[in-house]
Amino acid sequence: MSDSAKPIFEKVALLGIGLIGSSMAHAMRRAGLASHIAGYTQRAQTLERARAVGFADSLHGDAASCVKDADLVVLATPVGTYAALAEQIAPHLKCGAILSDVGSVKSAVIRDVGPFVPEGVHFIPAHPIAGTEQSGPEAGFAELFDGRWCILTPPPGTDASALERLKSFWRRLGSDVEVMEARHHDLVLAITSHLPHLIAYNIVGTADDLQTVTQSEVIKYSAGGFRDFTRIAASDPTMWRDVFLNNREAVLEVLGRFSEDLSALQRAIRWGDGEALFNLFTRTRAIRRSIVDAGQDTPAADFGRGKKKDQ
Amino acid sequence: MSDSAKPIFEKVALLGIGLIGSSMAHAMRRAGLASHIAGYTQRAQTLERARAVGFADSLHGDAASCVKDADLVVLATPVGTYAALAEQIAPHLKCGAILSDVGSVKSAVIRDVGPFVPEGVHFIPAHPIAGTEQSGPEAGFAELFDGRWCILTPPPGTDASALERLKSFWRRLGSDVEVMEARHHDLVLAITSHLPHLIAYNIVGTADDLQTVTQSEVIKYSAGGFRDFTRIAASDPTMWRDVFLNNREAVLEVLGRFSEDLSALQRAIRWGDGEALFNLFTRTRAIRRSIVDAGQDTPAADFGRGKKKDQ
Repeated sequence: MSDSAKPIFEKVALLGIGLIGSSMAHAMRRAGLASHIAGYTQRAQTLERARAVGFADSLHGDAASCVKDADLVVLATPVGTYAALAEQIAPHLKCGAILSDVGSVKSAVIRDVGPFVPEGVHFIPAHPIAGTEQSGPEAGFAELFDGRWCILTPPPGTDASALERLKSFWRRLGSDVEVMEARHHDLVLAITSHLPHLIAYNIVGTADDLQTVTQSEVIKYSAGGFRDFTRIAASDPTMWRDVFLNNREAVLEVLGRFSEDLSALQRAIRWGDGEALFNLFTRTRAIRRSIVDAGQDTPAADFGRGKKKDQ
Repeated sequence: MSDSAKPIFEKVALLGIGLIGSSMAHAMRRAGLASHIAGYTQRAQTLERARAVGFADSLHGDAASCVKDADLVVLATPVGTYAALAEQIAPHLKCGAILSDVGSVKSAVIRDVGPFVPEGVHFIPAHPIAGTEQSGPEAGFAELFDGRWCILTPPPGTDASALERLKSFWRRLGSDVEVMEARHHDLVLAITSHLPHLIAYNIVGTADDLQTVTQSEVIKYSAGGFRDFTRIAASDPTMWRDVFLNNREAVLEVLGRFSEDLSALQRAIRWGDGEALFNLFTRTRAIRRSIVDAGQDTPAADFGRGKKKDQ
């Protein structure tokens, strides 16, 4: 058995088995990364649904029993639940285990979870930059992390060999791995993910509230651009509430910039400044090209959705 | 030959052969809608590229010769060029011909083109709600209008049989047809298309200007949501400049609403009002579902882009 085919961990415990947790389980199975995958969810109904899909070796309604003897424990619930969950599992963590997570914010996770981490447990926060607008244990699939980045934010003094093991783990889940300081992560994600979600949620709300245009008109004519925003605005509400509550400063910072820039555009429209509009609209085209070139999006027109001839 | 297989027009002249014009030509051929498709473009290079694709029966560098004897003439250049083009072709339009367009704004088109329409020519503005982020004569494909809406905004007193012919034409191009007052069209499109484009252009510009996050970081981690916006922000700059210059009032109106709502969200984040965030994020999910149910977007996760297992 070559190194790349060996399990990295004997037992992995996934606390939370929604889109990300269940996708990790599928991808771990695909790569043979763990001898035993344990899943935890608080809700009996979600547990039953997960059992029906069948991606875990054991399923638990109790976090303590789930993490027992686990070599890797991954928090994969909304970040607002982390502190209570960490407190609950702390006494049951195995010495030498890695405690990680998949949350979209990192400074707050270190603030909330750090104090509960027992001596001898390696705490290494992580964030896979991957997801879809769908939620729940049925939404997961093994390819979710393929070609996507996973950012690790190890606190100073993190054990080097534990960090290497977690890096290998994510690489074998299909990701490229980057290490970053938690504060910087939160700023990068504020612009690449949190602000896009915020303004998508916002425009969909604005459209829903207009009196002059009916909701059925908005739905009918959404192919003009609006529908692209509704995908993002269909993301899990609890997860996203927790993101905004836990990355407040960085989000307010980029939101301030966004609003300033939008005021300048508003002014250009009001005063008929076609040159300012044209210049911005030309500049933004180049960024799309770079993202496609970097393999972070499809080059197909319209994301390749619907029936299209081959481009 | 059944009615639905007969050409509706002997000759159709497309003034402008970019994404929309070339897609109309492909779709007309697919449905056998015209005996002769004539295309016009001012630029010699575009003309050569269109010749290479081969979707037209004749190609013209001169608008007057393109519209000669045409039964249907369609303006398919950026709306800022319409007035000059209308003035130029007016003396060459055949009596009884239909003059239409595909512009994203309608009141301004009636304002700019209306005064040049000769007696005996039927002027019926139109707007197919379809497009991709790609431009030029190679970007077109026959399926672009399939299942999408096309809005006609006939001025008061429009000839009923001419209107019926144009409706049949768009239906046989694959579209569903709706008739609407021009002013209302402009308001509906301001929220479903123009504002989404404006804020997509804006956020991509904001990201490009940040000093604390590098452009390469924005590109690398764009899968967190940002990349969805870059697709729209890669749309044709000239076309979109003209849209904003020509639908100023409606765009400023919905932009005002958007900004107000965004300020409320900003406040909720600043004060940690999780309930307000959760309520909005829940409400917006339902709209996505309605759009998918109405056949205006794919139900596949992530627009079905990239490799994904079947959902």
